[in-house]
Amino acid sequence: MHKVDVVITEVGPRDGLQNTKNFMPTAAKKAWISAEAAAGVRAIEVCSFVPAKLIPQFIDAEEVLAHANSVAGLTAVVLVPNFKGCERALASGARRVMVPISVSEAHSMSNVRKTTTQAIEEFARMVELVRAQPPGQRAQLVGACSTAFGCSLQGAVAEDDVLRVALALRAAGADAITLADTVGYANPEQVKRMFSRVYKAIGADFAVEAHFHNTRGLGLANALAAYEAGVRHFDSTLGGLGGCPFAPGASGNVVTEDLVFMFEAMGVSTGIDLGKLIAVRQTAFAALPDAELYGHISKAGLPKGFEPSAQAA
Amino acid sequence: MHKVDVVITEVGPRDGLQNTKNFMPTAAKKAWISAEAAAGVRAIEVCSFVPAKLIPQFIDAEEVLAHANSVAGLTAVVLVPNFKGCERALASGARRVMVPISVSEAHSMSNVRKTTTQAIEEFARMVELVRAQPPGQRAQLVGACSTAFGCSLQGAVAEDDVLRVALALRAAGADAITLADTVGYANPEQVKRMFSRVYKAIGADFAVEAHFHNTRGLGLANALAAYEAGVRHFDSTLGGLGGCPFAPGASGNVVTEDLVFMFEAMGVSTGIDLGKLIAVRQTAFAALPDAELYGHISKAGLPKGFEPSAQAA
Repeated sequence: MHKVDVVITEVGPRDGLQNTKNFMPTAAKKAWISAEAAAGVRAIEVCSFVPAKLIPQFIDAEEVLAHANSVAGLTAVVLVPNFKGCERALASGARRVMVPISVSEAHSMSNVRKTTTQAIEEFARMVELVRAQPPGQRAQLVGACSTAFGCSLQGAVAEDDVLRVALALRAAGADAITLADTVGYANPEQVKRMFSRVYKAIGADFAVEAHFHNTRGLGLANALAAYEAGVRHFDSTLGGLGGCPFAPGASGNVVTEDLVFMFEAMGVSTGIDLGKLIAVRQTAFAALPDAELYGHISKAGLPKGFEPSAQAA
Repeated sequence: MHKVDVVITEVGPRDGLQNTKNFMPTAAKKAWISAEAAAGVRAIEVCSFVPAKLIPQFIDAEEVLAHANSVAGLTAVVLVPNFKGCERALASGARRVMVPISVSEAHSMSNVRKTTTQAIEEFARMVELVRAQPPGQRAQLVGACSTAFGCSLQGAVAEDDVLRVALALRAAGADAITLADTVGYANPEQVKRMFSRVYKAIGADFAVEAHFHNTRGLGLANALAAYEAGVRHFDSTLGGLGGCPFAPGASGNVVTEDLVFMFEAMGVSTGIDLGKLIAVRQTAFAALPDAELYGHISKAGLPKGFEPSAQAA
């Protein structure tokens, strides 16, 4: 597989499905994952290891992960809300584990009934779990700073707090950091400033990733600003599926196919075949008719004579 | 009125209404214009001086322009497709006249049955018209380079051609230049490169303005890129009303309220009260129930504790 300029992680099977009303059948999830991988998507967040009584959507987490792990060339990512979830994920063969830590204390208490400091301590215990794995088979742990650009409960979130949490997660042993705009409050100026500060403190070699929602329409502009600040890893969902229960009126995540279009049009390679990706959008949700999808490129079509980055280069 | 960092021209009454099925009553147009001006919008493109048999929507162009000219602090802009329209506009008291010139020959022939060179020659004749006006009462002429970022008929448009047309319009006597993404083909990299080239050739003091559509979802990202390249004048439409008949599936213009939100959140002042603007969206289209509106901030609401630029500064 050739090198790409940016890695786009499809988080629809986790962040997208988390808030849908109906269960997506396991076979449909597997088909969706396989189809996106076949379109060139190299990383997919496939499930969350939460108790099924809290989010029944993920009752099939083990089976979905096992399938994703069997897809050649695909990095399967899972989300865990706590230590217990991490144990379960590792026992199920997870290779890359996303752990959200709310920078906003209000969000942290509301979401997982822990202070941010307690959540960071729990993250450190997960690092020990991973370090106890056999060398060469250690899973990667990603510390995701939730509400890094604002919180619908607390309002503004201090940039110093974000930096402090990011550095604490790094010090605790995180393999990568994500700054997440959980409720769609971020603006491009803030994004550029925040990522630049984190890079300066944490080192440009360390992977700092971006997770934007499009709640207030700035998702792609924020991704552009993050790219300009040096970010090379972005989360998004096919058809913009999903949102956040804490963001009323939220219109969902950044749309994968629109994000891919933006980068490819700019000459920034994603490794993703846009035509194939748009076709996945048309088939993946057949089993989930209540899914609210949106996005532009799938409706407007590619520009006449459009050349993706691989050809343009 | 205090200085603003960027001027946003609402082009809904012209570009937005141009493609709607039904006629918006003249009284409703006037009320819309007044309400946006009261929300702090300083420039509005209010009508097009085209023959009413071609676009019946603008049969009341004179009356709407007269109203807009009477609104204190408002710059009323009109569009003219040709010399005849310019004569009519000036006779009706137009103070700022937008003249689209297609950089794409295919678009120019299809749209106005003239080559680009012929259209530039006609523009030069309009300059003479304006220069014959009494000193101190001369209208401003804006040369709008249509299809500056691509054309749905021709495909790619050479950047050298855009530069050539922009410089020709400047040389012919244009007071400002607009680069317009008529069909929604632009990407942020191209936008930044193109505006930088034009500024370099034409001088940073000369006003080069941006008109983006959101057909493929990149409207705000393109506006951000243009802002970073030095652009301080942007067109948009309330609720994203409008589109282009040459862009099938088009979802319309950049959404004024989302654009204002992006800039105000970044600390870039627009002079526009976002709450009042969103309220206009809720009332302006009562007389046009078939209007297809979209946009995000009007649905999601402002972030908790949001401070517009004037307070943040």
